[in-house]
Amino acid sequence: MAQRLLTERFQQLNGEGVFSGKRGNATPSIYDRAIDYASGVPDPGILPYAAIEEAVRGVLGGRDAFAALSYSDFSGIARLREHIARLRGVSPDNVFVTNGAMEGIYLAAQALVAPGDRVLLENPVFPEGKRIFELAGAQTESVAVGAHGVDLDELEERLLSGVRYKAFYTVPDFHNPTGAVTDGPSKSRLMELADRYGFSVVADNPYADLWFERPPAQFPQEYRNSKLDEHLIEIGSFSKILGPGWRIGWIIASASTVRALTSFRRSLDGHPSTFGQYVVSELLDDDAWFQDLLRRERALYAAKARALYTALRSAFGEGVCAEKPQGGYFLWARLPIEGNSSDADAAREFSRQNLLLVPGGSFISGWSPGSAALRVGQHIRLSFAHSPTDDLVKGVNRLHDAVDRLPATTHS
Amino acid sequence: MAQRLLTERFQQLNGEGVFSGKRGNATPSIYDRAIDYASGVPDPGILPYAAIEEAVRGVLGGRDAFAALSYSDFSGIARLREHIARLRGVSPDNVFVTNGAMEGIYLAAQALVAPGDRVLLENPVFPEGKRIFELAGAQTESVAVGAHGVDLDELEERLLSGVRYKAFYTVPDFHNPTGAVTDGPSKSRLMELADRYGFSVVADNPYADLWFERPPAQFPQEYRNSKLDEHLIEIGSFSKILGPGWRIGWIIASASTVRALTSFRRSLDGHPSTFGQYVVSELLDDDAWFQDLLRRERALYAAKARALYTALRSAFGEGVCAEKPQGGYFLWARLPIEGNSSDADAAREFSRQNLLLVPGGSFISGWSPGSAALRVGQHIRLSFAHSPTDDLVKGVNRLHDAVDRLPATTHS
Repeated sequence: MAQRLLTERFQQLNGEGVFSGKRGNATPSIYDRAIDYASGVPDPGILPYAAIEEAVRGVLGGRDAFAALSYSDFSGIARLREHIARLRGVSPDNVFVTNGAMEGIYLAAQALVAPGDRVLLENPVFPEGKRIFELAGAQTESVAVGAHGVDLDELEERLLSGVRYKAFYTVPDFHNPTGAVTDGPSKSRLMELADRYGFSVVADNPYADLWFERPPAQFPQEYRNSKLDEHLIEIGSFSKILGPGWRIGWIIASASTVRALTSFRRSLDGHPSTFGQYVVSELLDDDAWFQDLLRRERALYAAKARALYTALRSAFGEGVCAEKPQGGYFLWARLPIEGNSSDADAAREFSRQNLLLVPGGSFISGWSPGSAALRVGQHIRLSFAHSPTDDLVKGVNRLHDAVDRLPATTHS
Repeated sequence: MAQRLLTERFQQLNGEGVFSGKRGNATPSIYDRAIDYASGVPDPGILPYAAIEEAVRGVLGGRDAFAALSYSDFSGIARLREHIARLRGVSPDNVFVTNGAMEGIYLAAQALVAPGDRVLLENPVFPEGKRIFELAGAQTESVAVGAHGVDLDELEERLLSGVRYKAFYTVPDFHNPTGAVTDGPSKSRLMELADRYGFSVVADNPYADLWFERPPAQFPQEYRNSKLDEHLIEIGSFSKILGPGWRIGWIIASASTVRALTSFRRSLDGHPSTFGQYVVSELLDDDAWFQDLLRRERALYAAKARALYTALRSAFGEGVCAEKPQGGYFLWARLPIEGNSSDADAAREFSRQNLLLVPGGSFISGWSPGSAALRVGQHIRLSFAHSPTDDLVKGVNRLHDAVDRLPATTHS
């Protein structure tokens, strides 16, 4: 009776990806004692549980109780779009609410990519973003990311080749995985290139609000409040601030793009949870409270990043190649691993030390001249957001032990 | 500077569809006094606001508070999958949680349809379902729906033609818009046809629990607890029971299809609101409470359906062609409208009478021998779920007035 009826594309889908696989190497009992550098999720202590409960009471006790349990606008409820517009300095016409930033990337890929179109990615890259563009049928190529964001010279060289690219997918602020920040002049130059060569910049920016010393520069405002221009699609999220479980993110794009997305989304999932949109709106109504939450989160993650960075320096000295994070959730490090050890070798040693982390190879999207310093088997992405500070520091010694054992493993 | 960079497909997207357009003809002041037969949403008085607030307190005060605000399984949280499996009589391996039934249809279409594939629809059809398959690239054809569901003889004749169809999209129980129910023997015969001719039945079933006298038959169990078989994809939702604002629906399919959907969804939106999934699970933990809610909803909607049907019969006598609803939200009626009035003519008169309803033409998906009784401009779908009973009854007189005026309008 069994017969394969799914499309070829669906039959070839496999696995759950690098992130859900993070428990793969550890038995449950080891996992309980493990130190987690893998999860890109908030510190459990900072989430505003009491304020959320109060917001829920406000929604269910107010005149919008039924509306909050009903269908709502395909572009997001007006109240939330206005809050996001205010927070991001654009018009509500430029705001579209998504079921998490992930759906924002998916929609951008659907809007921009026809099968066979070429898309530029960063190297290293957020691998889920890469996969979304590839599932949309994109042919992808990579451009190196340095300490100050994507290498714009390398990007321009690629564009000069005459090949037409439809989009460039980037995490401009507190890059995942490297933590790099694309500064204001670089954002302007990037948009000039987009304009000149006719491609869209898909700026996936869930960490933009979590800066430690200064806020990252915005993209040029004329691309952000546009009625028609399609060169910039910005994606953001409340996931890293209020918790990923809300699945409330957004797209900022031209008003005409927002209208097209609204029409498409009608035949996708309708809209994200109306209830969640109302609860988050209720929280955002108190802007002083929200700004205070952001201040406390910035201070917490800055302190955790500092503790981790200091521990790495003190354990490895100049042997570790890493930049001190300026915001976001991640520290990207090249470890002093000799020989040709693979990600699998490194993963095995990390697992023996009860460390959960995503090996660097998961983020490396290809080779390019500027990517010469990237080495599979030597890089790791360390999240400092989720684990307690004590664990972050304690784990570095285990990391050092793992690295010490690696050359032996490599030749086994 | 403005340059069109979106794909052709996206540039051609337009409008927000028949449902969101329902306020289009009425000015806001008229709308306030209008009677709503259009909205496929629950009665505001039946939703369990207090129980929801208590469930939220349970989630935020319990040991899963952080988990409820975090990322969760791409297939849905285990606790909710187990509840749905229990309620629907399948294994949790066959359950996949969606962001509303809409996303379930979208995912089914993505899983089954490659561009150019042929898909069979019902006539009349739920137009959003039609649009989802068409956006996936399907070539669609229609088969007539009668009082007892799709015309299986017409369906088989189509299959005998030798053309290969990939899927048949149906709303088997309390059909939208006609209210028809596909009985047990017909469901078995449908699955035999699916097996013999190699297509999948996509059974969109959000109203299945809202039966008035007896529950609708299930599809044959061997297709519902399958590990591999891909002939049946059932879609359900809590939207009509706990409110569409949760965006929590489900797919029931073979375990292997659930795995493929899980892998695809990782690159779509990750998962529906974790918070919503926990709150709904908390509600479902109290099965006695949930069964009582279902009993009260069935009684309420049965009474409202009866009141509307009786009012129609007493206003139009045998002039109206309609079946008494056996469940669900909708009553489908052919009105005694003479001449060749169009949906636009009818809509104008309904609007003059301050009636909100979806004209029948929106549901008519094409011509086929069994669809001979369908007439654009004469059918209407009346939702009895949302409006107060008094309004449902009072509106029928306005409807009668509108019909009375129609022949004159037609020739204007």
